[in-house]
Amino acid sequence: MRAVDIIIKKREKEQLTAQEIDFFVQGFTNGDIPDYQASSFAMAVLLNGMTNFETTDLTLSMARSGQVLDLSKIVDVVVDKHSSGGVGDKTSISVMPMVAACGLPVGKMSGRGLGFSGGTLDKLESIPGYRVDLTTDEFKAQLKEKGIVLTGQSLDLAPADGKMYALRDVTGTVPSMPLIASSIMCKKIAAGATAIVLDVKVGMGAFMQTLEEGRELAELMVDIGRLAGRKTVALLSDMNQPLGSAVGNALEMIEAIEALRGKAPSDYMEHILHVTAHVLLLGGRVNTLEEGRAMAQRSIEDGSALDKLRLLVSAQGGDVSYVDDTSKFERAKLVEVVKAPRGGFVSQVHARIVGEASVALGAGRAKKGDPIDYAVGFLILKKVGDVVQEGEPLCEIHANDAEKLKEAHAAILASYQFSNEPVPPLPLFYE
Amino acid sequence: MRAVDIIIKKREKEQLTAQEIDFFVQGFTNGDIPDYQASSFAMAVLLNGMTNFETTDLTLSMARSGQVLDLSKIVDVVVDKHSSGGVGDKTSISVMPMVAACGLPVGKMSGRGLGFSGGTLDKLESIPGYRVDLTTDEFKAQLKEKGIVLTGQSLDLAPADGKMYALRDVTGTVPSMPLIASSIMCKKIAAGATAIVLDVKVGMGAFMQTLEEGRELAELMVDIGRLAGRKTVALLSDMNQPLGSAVGNALEMIEAIEALRGKAPSDYMEHILHVTAHVLLLGGRVNTLEEGRAMAQRSIEDGSALDKLRLLVSAQGGDVSYVDDTSKFERAKLVEVVKAPRGGFVSQVHARIVGEASVALGAGRAKKGDPIDYAVGFLILKKVGDVVQEGEPLCEIHANDAEKLKEAHAAILASYQFSNEPVPPLPLFYE
Repeated sequence: MRAVDIIIKKREKEQLTAQEIDFFVQGFTNGDIPDYQASSFAMAVLLNGMTNFETTDLTLSMARSGQVLDLSKIVDVVVDKHSSGGVGDKTSISVMPMVAACGLPVGKMSGRGLGFSGGTLDKLESIPGYRVDLTTDEFKAQLKEKGIVLTGQSLDLAPADGKMYALRDVTGTVPSMPLIASSIMCKKIAAGATAIVLDVKVGMGAFMQTLEEGRELAELMVDIGRLAGRKTVALLSDMNQPLGSAVGNALEMIEAIEALRGKAPSDYMEHILHVTAHVLLLGGRVNTLEEGRAMAQRSIEDGSALDKLRLLVSAQGGDVSYVDDTSKFERAKLVEVVKAPRGGFVSQVHARIVGEASVALGAGRAKKGDPIDYAVGFLILKKVGDVVQEGEPLCEIHANDAEKLKEAHAAILASYQFSNEPVPPLPLFYE
Repeated sequence: MRAVDIIIKKREKEQLTAQEIDFFVQGFTNGDIPDYQASSFAMAVLLNGMTNFETTDLTLSMARSGQVLDLSKIVDVVVDKHSSGGVGDKTSISVMPMVAACGLPVGKMSGRGLGFSGGTLDKLESIPGYRVDLTTDEFKAQLKEKGIVLTGQSLDLAPADGKMYALRDVTGTVPSMPLIASSIMCKKIAAGATAIVLDVKVGMGAFMQTLEEGRELAELMVDIGRLAGRKTVALLSDMNQPLGSAVGNALEMIEAIEALRGKAPSDYMEHILHVTAHVLLLGGRVNTLEEGRAMAQRSIEDGSALDKLRLLVSAQGGDVSYVDDTSKFERAKLVEVVKAPRGGFVSQVHARIVGEASVALGAGRAKKGDPIDYAVGFLILKKVGDVVQEGEPLCEIHANDAEKLKEAHAAILASYQFSNEPVPPLPLFYE
């Protein structure tokens, strides 16, 4: 078997066998197949597509490119919840403790933010001491003893994906459904998940801009999960405007923690209850979504979800007092309110503009390895459908630099649009 | 400007500017743009195509990636004749001396054989001492003094092309019209040709299998030539069966030399007269094709073409006695006749099968750098349209290894097909 023949086969729109895909993936991982063959292959896949069978084979092959965790001896069911990434998306930080409080073990590996989209690891690190670099053994031990783990992606898992992703980023081969879906799913499978809830974000602040694209990706990933023998469900949720109010690492941590006390914007509360209910249903903890929702609600009311977050933070070396008193989080030196330039109904809070503005403030990184300012970000006070008077506060900017504050102010004004007619609020979920 | 943005633009089927193409080509040549970006770019070009303007920009940019010869101070007009490659194609070796004998200076750089297709340089090297590694200065000096040069491609010329071709070969990006056309034309332009006759081979033994493909490539190259300010004409000639009789380096040299004495198979004689006539017309030496053909014919009859070949061989260090006595060429130890397995009309002599069989005998190389056996090959005695009796000789095999001889025998039998009905001979030229 030769790598070039596999490239040619895909170039000619033929279907690849599992053996051919595995030969290519394992060869690429161990360096036998050079980057220049992998990049021309990726471009052929992007332009000619793959069947769902091929994409599943690609996913399984990438999962097998490193260690595949078998957690069946530790726990009966391993539920993972994955978001395709967006602005203000701190969902995992609230949902994981709720799920654990409802009696399902949760062991999750998360990613860092890149581009306009934030990352769970960066948010967690705004708690001093919190470790996101657990070894596989530490991961397993903590899952067994505490029933909750939230750490970074281990380097041992799916190394083909890390290598491939870095290459795609510089060869114009990112926006390919089979490559995106396999990249997400191979990590879940390698991390030992037996049940996977996918939260596919759709809209101006998501990688999938349209509902059609989002649905295609969601269906593809559910198919892969099914063909790979994992219980998988996908939700399609809105990412035209930021989720909740907070955008920025410490601000989002505060919102995620306060949500476990029942004190968070209603859209965010609704979002985490819905996602948790799906996780509980898929994990076999409840029989209906309504039951799941009620159980999730109780975990907030009785304080058990907050207790699980405390347990998580302390198990991973973080300062638990931040959970008990969120005023301890680092705060930005400059806080400024953006006022509505006119009255009317809010018709747009462009999530991508807000996300890019938060990166410009220092909350995210333009490229891998850039330092992050945990304190900066936004509190979005008015959202789509809200009615505002001229001069009313739209948004709070938290900044550490006067020049950047000025730029952020302009960006926030650009992200808002208003209408004279009433605007219905955006749906939280599409399907 | 970033390489990845240029790749993305081509991926999205947009037209690239001359600046973007030049940025990519020069960056690739000097190593700023790595192979993995060039290969994903090449795949995007292969699958999404290029306009003729883009392809011309690519050609000129590759020509400018190294030295561009300006021969205008040495000679008034520089004619080049290029064949797209085939089996038994020794045309340049006969045509260049004929053209020189008719009073046009000819300075040509040729390539080596690769795959089933032979190369002019390998054929020339079957004359002991013949040098194909002239420096650019030697090339110019010989062109000025002798008016005829036939050597290898200088490494200083169009280095982007050599680098790109090696990459395309291993990344599944060879069969792309814009990449093939620019690869051929950039070398002609860099070598200083002002008038270019392209002999595009079409058929089972050519890179272009169909007349449509051949015509597309021919039209594209003529367009490039025109846009680049070079007089260019393209002929479409048959390569379903080998050209002439001889296939193999020394055997083809003998046929090419004997043709200058008027002693060669009629199809080959016809081919070289036609090509030479076109070269003379394009080079302004004659006003009509008929005039060119008559002049070409005279150069054979009066021995002046053979004299020019002597001049060429001696100028480049070769043993001229081989031209005077072709029996001096190295001969294979084993010669075997393949007999017709049945009577009838020859309906096929599959050029590609014959070409691959000659490589297997040792006449060509499977990969760059492989050694070559100059003596081995075939003399095709019966061609399409010929009538044969059962047991009549079809082909002579010249081999140096009994095992390989056996395989070649089977291959030749496989290349022939017969019909009970008369079969018209294949045309030499299509357009």
